[in-house]
Amino acid sequence: MAEWAELLALDQGRMFEALRGFPEQAERGLALSCRIPNGIHGFKSVVVLGMGGSAIAGDLLARFSTVPVITVRDYTLPPWVNSETLLLAISYSGETEETLAAFREGLKRTKRAVALSTGGALAAMCEEEGIPWVPVPPGLQPRAALGFLLFPLLGCFSRFGLLRGDPKGALPGLRALREMCVSSDGDNPAQKFAQELYGKVPIIYGAGTTGPVAYRWKTQINENAKQPAYWAEIPELCHNEIVGYELCSKVFPEGVFVFLRTPSDHPRVAKRVEILKEVLSRRGLLFLEVWAEGEDPLSQALWHLYFGDWVSFYLALLNGVDPTPVVPIQELKRKLKEA
Amino acid sequence: MAEWAELLALDQGRMFEALRGFPEQAERGLALSCRIPNGIHGFKSVVVLGMGGSAIAGDLLARFSTVPVITVRDYTLPPWVNSETLLLAISYSGETEETLAAFREGLKRTKRAVALSTGGALAAMCEEEGIPWVPVPPGLQPRAALGFLLFPLLGCFSRFGLLRGDPKGALPGLRALREMCVSSDGDNPAQKFAQELYGKVPIIYGAGTTGPVAYRWKTQINENAKQPAYWAEIPELCHNEIVGYELCSKVFPEGVFVFLRTPSDHPRVAKRVEILKEVLSRRGLLFLEVWAEGEDPLSQALWHLYFGDWVSFYLALLNGVDPTPVVPIQELKRKLKEA
Repeated sequence: MAEWAELLALDQGRMFEALRGFPEQAERGLALSCRIPNGIHGFKSVVVLGMGGSAIAGDLLARFSTVPVITVRDYTLPPWVNSETLLLAISYSGETEETLAAFREGLKRTKRAVALSTGGALAAMCEEEGIPWVPVPPGLQPRAALGFLLFPLLGCFSRFGLLRGDPKGALPGLRALREMCVSSDGDNPAQKFAQELYGKVPIIYGAGTTGPVAYRWKTQINENAKQPAYWAEIPELCHNEIVGYELCSKVFPEGVFVFLRTPSDHPRVAKRVEILKEVLSRRGLLFLEVWAEGEDPLSQALWHLYFGDWVSFYLALLNGVDPTPVVPIQELKRKLKEA
Repeated sequence: MAEWAELLALDQGRMFEALRGFPEQAERGLALSCRIPNGIHGFKSVVVLGMGGSAIAGDLLARFSTVPVITVRDYTLPPWVNSETLLLAISYSGETEETLAAFREGLKRTKRAVALSTGGALAAMCEEEGIPWVPVPPGLQPRAALGFLLFPLLGCFSRFGLLRGDPKGALPGLRALREMCVSSDGDNPAQKFAQELYGKVPIIYGAGTTGPVAYRWKTQINENAKQPAYWAEIPELCHNEIVGYELCSKVFPEGVFVFLRTPSDHPRVAKRVEILKEVLSRRGLLFLEVWAEGEDPLSQALWHLYFGDWVSFYLALLNGVDPTPVVPIQELKRKLKEA
């Protein structure tokens, strides 16, 4: 295998720099939360409209919010959206067609709405409709802008007293993790972890607050490393996916199962993980564990998320690809425009 | 490959009979809905507590309900559950520990609640707390009792005027599908489809109302055929999973992508599927399509669901296993009890 210093030359799109900036981005994202006006308060539920890297912000918010948050990744809205619903439309480019369609539909039913984007048609729609719009700094891949898309929501919900956990409290842990993940002294945990995943298909397992983080790992491996990855949640997977282990070594020898663990996991979930490890071992199947650091579930989930971003970056390099370009998405978007 | 008549001898647990009975089970499930009292009406949102084959009933209900329905597959409840929330606890055995824990917590916050089970601790809890309990016929595997678990909910929501679609209208289509899927005349579409999946790892793609159906296919392949399967939803997967196709043939040659299609798909989703097929083809990746029959989205989703159940059954036979036993789940439950 080539040296990391050599492999880093693959990073033509400068994803390394974007990842390195995540803790500062998160801090700026928190500051942006003041652009979300207090006047929207009084909602009974929240619908986050977004796709991919924007939608995951909704999923994460949902696990820490004390009001119901539902992420809609589609062109249309559920029928129950009404004036008591807060619409949060998130699109880095401001041009995501699903988000625009759903937001247009939503604004006929509620004016309690906010949008986040770098500009685009979403910003124009907000101006036209008199809806507050939070400007997000441009120049990044949407998936590398999660600090700007998630932390304004966390900051705002924290201000409203609707959040379990303090998003500011997560920042020192993210900075400490960054120090480990940027180094090339042979002791970088993200590089080591990527080596364990190389040539395999990871299936990422989260639980509770780390459920959406498992999904983020999957999508980051897809987009950065250009390879398949899947995910599932504990305890649910104990009721079905576990049976699939029986013939796994026969039809799917490349599978490797990754447990995202935290000291806050429910004790019965922690027990389930120990048994799952036995069940996998008995069938000769590979698994890995990552223990999050952090004082509370929010800090731990964000730690896991950031670590997964780094792992997907180094896995891209091992796969011999530039982490940044997403050729099939560009291809699809071009063809959709022609349609 | 052995003849189907021979392979059917593997079905020691009589899953064939259970699947054959699904349309009648659905009809009896609809009749059971009268056991859910009108007095629970007036809720603002619904939380379905369940795992595996029970939870999927909540996911399906959510896509057709005109009030918010959230499925909780965990030991604990979201903090916003209150007296305006309807709790629907579903557990075939009545002994599912996650469901019991969450229901116990929930009854401290709302008495607007109903439970479905064959009995067990869940029935006892209902009696103690004066909560209506709907008795479900025993003797089946939980995943083979979906007619009894889902259709009471569909029937009740239809009566309340909270359902998009008429669950009764789906029954003739399910019966017609059954006729095709029980035959061994060489023209059985489920047998043919299972043959296409044999030796591969299916990734099932749904969209909108068929999203939860894709997940059901995944879990049925896990439990019946004892092998891995994964799932995702369109349009979301166009924003991440699609990039994973780039190195798919290298690290995951066994993958086969299955599109669940319906005439009701959003036109832009339909267009996306056509482009996805091109993207897959260009990389030499395998895919299959199944078009649902039925007059409306509900009938089509249920048609897809029932067809997937049959496919997973025949795939089990091709894999040389009895569809019924779920050894790793039993193993895990035993160890959890000791813990």
